[in-house]
Amino acid sequence: SEVKKIAVIAGDGIGPEVVAEAEKVLKRTEELFGYTFETEHALFGGIAIDERGTPLPEDTLEICRSADAVLLGAVGGPKWDNNSKELRPETGLLGIRKALGLFSNLRPAVVFDCLKDASTLKPEVLEGTDLMVVRELTGGIYFGDKLRRQGEHGEEAVDTCVYNVMEVERIVRQAFEIAGKRRGKLASVDKANVLETSRLWREVVNRVAPEYPQVEVEHVLVDNCAMQLLRRPSSFDVIVTENMFGDILSDEAAMLTGSIGMLASASLGEGSYGLYEPVHGSAPDIAGQGLANPIATILSLALMFRMTFGYENAAAAIEAAVAEVLDAGHRTSDIAVDKSKAISTTEMGDLIVAAI
Amino acid sequence: SEVKKIAVIAGDGIGPEVVAEAEKVLKRTEELFGYTFETEHALFGGIAIDERGTPLPEDTLEICRSADAVLLGAVGGPKWDNNSKELRPETGLLGIRKALGLFSNLRPAVVFDCLKDASTLKPEVLEGTDLMVVRELTGGIYFGDKLRRQGEHGEEAVDTCVYNVMEVERIVRQAFEIAGKRRGKLASVDKANVLETSRLWREVVNRVAPEYPQVEVEHVLVDNCAMQLLRRPSSFDVIVTENMFGDILSDEAAMLTGSIGMLASASLGEGSYGLYEPVHGSAPDIAGQGLANPIATILSLALMFRMTFGYENAAAAIEAAVAEVLDAGHRTSDIAVDKSKAISTTEMGDLIVAAI
Ligand SMILES: CC(C)[C@H](C(=O)O)[C@@H](O)C(=O)O
Ligand SMILES: CC(C)[C@H](C(=O)O)[C@@H](O)C(=O)O
Repeated sequence: SEVKKIAVIAGDGIGPEVVAEAEKVLKRTEELFGYTFETEHALFGGIAIDERGTPLPEDTLEICRSADAVLLGAVGGPKWDNNSKELRPETGLLGIRKALGLFSNLRPAVVFDCLKDASTLKPEVLEGTDLMVVRELTGGIYFGDKLRRQGEHGEEAVDTCVYNVMEVERIVRQAFEIAGKRRGKLASVDKANVLETSRLWREVVNRVAPEYPQVEVEHVLVDNCAMQLLRRPSSFDVIVTENMFGDILSDEAAMLTGSIGMLASASLGEGSYGLYEPVHGSAPDIAGQGLANPIATILSLALMFRMTFGYENAAAAIEAAVAEVLDAGHRTSDIAVDKSKAISTTEMGDLIVAAI
Repeated sequence: SEVKKIAVIAGDGIGPEVVAEAEKVLKRTEELFGYTFETEHALFGGIAIDERGTPLPEDTLEICRSADAVLLGAVGGPKWDNNSKELRPETGLLGIRKALGLFSNLRPAVVFDCLKDASTLKPEVLEGTDLMVVRELTGGIYFGDKLRRQGEHGEEAVDTCVYNVMEVERIVRQAFEIAGKRRGKLASVDKANVLETSRLWREVVNRVAPEYPQVEVEHVLVDNCAMQLLRRPSSFDVIVTENMFGDILSDEAAMLTGSIGMLASASLGEGSYGLYEPVHGSAPDIAGQGLANPIATILSLALMFRMTFGYENAAAAIEAAVAEVLDAGHRTSDIAVDKSKAISTTEMGDLIVAAI
């Protein structure tokens, strides 16, 4: 079959460990399904700051651009937290999103059966929770002009939140499409009673909605959404929202599932291009000790198979393998009830590879 | 004693019903503690739109300005939701905050014993939760310039988020003061890895912090805070944050207590002036039926006694009366387990008055 090129960014902290396990899975699917992947590693984040003096080296961008998809481990850590803006891992993250045009961040929040007790929510409230946050990723207050100036009352800082119709429409349409393939419910989250960008957002949603008659859409104010996620998480299907609100709500949604260490995410651009990464961070405190859970990264690879390559069978096979290994009771220490029986990062990876 | 002037804004929905009960409590404290209150009612919100063509009539502002404090029921409802901006209750709310200089919104989130099962969080997670969100209320993206313009990619909308050092410093100092009188822990929430206004915010916090050596301060990113509120709510004491983040996080915090229908809030300006209101909304669906729970409004009055008038004894007496009535098992229908035994709004008010 066709050769698929994957840019692999291991990153910082536990990134390299979890990515290594996903690469084993990748290899196994080549054998089993006859795929051909070409992987190329690239420096990014803290390690790129250390080795190259910038979180996002130009050749990393080149490697990503010439690939069909990107697999990312995790970036950042306290080591770089007090750096100046240009020398921070987050700046690389914002830079790569913009440079690759990754305007849509998909964050599925599902409850893993074996982890439902890990949630701080009552099991009966969580029951049936399976939602997807579709977050706009390259606009809004993240990328608008920023400045400092002298004002009447001392120094002042300014951030600008800008959205145009095109930016809103492409993410909203994508959310409608996704909702149409799921349970047909879309919650569009804004703060239209205060923000002009939210009023534009809502107008676009209302204009586009009639084209998706099979999707039921409701407008939810962001403060109310933060509450309803807690009160009735299972009633949400797809949530679409702008960059800043999406940052907050997707993390809240992920945390309430109790399964945050297992969740995958996709950041998509035009066409089928995408960057895939686990929702969890770089966890520098446990890095290099074989304690990390590679499942979120492996599931991110499955998402890549499904969304970028259209390899639905392999995606489903990986997901089934993960479920099988968990059902058999295997746990890395982060999700083990009895820590003394926990298996290592590589053991978990090997078991999943064997189960595919 | 001195005459204290209170502007009373009943507002919409259940507003008039709950405010009426708080006024009974007010009267009773005059008898018991020898206070003299002068109340003046003012039109505001939806009812002001209907009767006067504006959500915030000039004479309402005058009544508020000449009072020592304002008691507000609730405003808004679907009736006015599709009005143009100038004819919406929220516009009145933003207007009154700005006009009265109410820059600080205090939202205590506590768990009422009798309601701890009403939370969707597990009781063991909720145990000991008692936090206060200090939200900046007259700056940020709520009040910055807004506009529509034609851009390269169609129409675009702009919101501007502005903070100056003075605005940040006054709210931050207040939060340090409050934390100093509580458990001495302050979480300052921002998004300093992305926003310039957050970087200014963080600088001010760091500059002011040494003046409050008894307060331990941590910086928490807003997305992380949305998660930690869910994961370890009891570890928070005081949270201080800017307007938009405060809107979202204070609602999340209130909801997770399970006691949202019972929570009071204060919006304070310079000096001791303040506007006090329940956290809950106008609940138009149950308005006029005697179903509303007046406790949050009565507790808002207690907060007024404490914070604006320094009537600590009366404040404590009201709070104790509420606790006594709840301990005796009396419930309005919103918090009744057995709805058939629920008492009405006025019955609840009468019981609390009798218990003071
Ligand atoms: C690190 C930070 C800039 C980033 C964001 O806010 O987008 C992160 O929180 C995320 O959600 O991917
Ligand atoms: C009604 C709305 C403008 C208001 C706000 O966002 O401040 C409300 O949500 C609140 O928190 O008081």
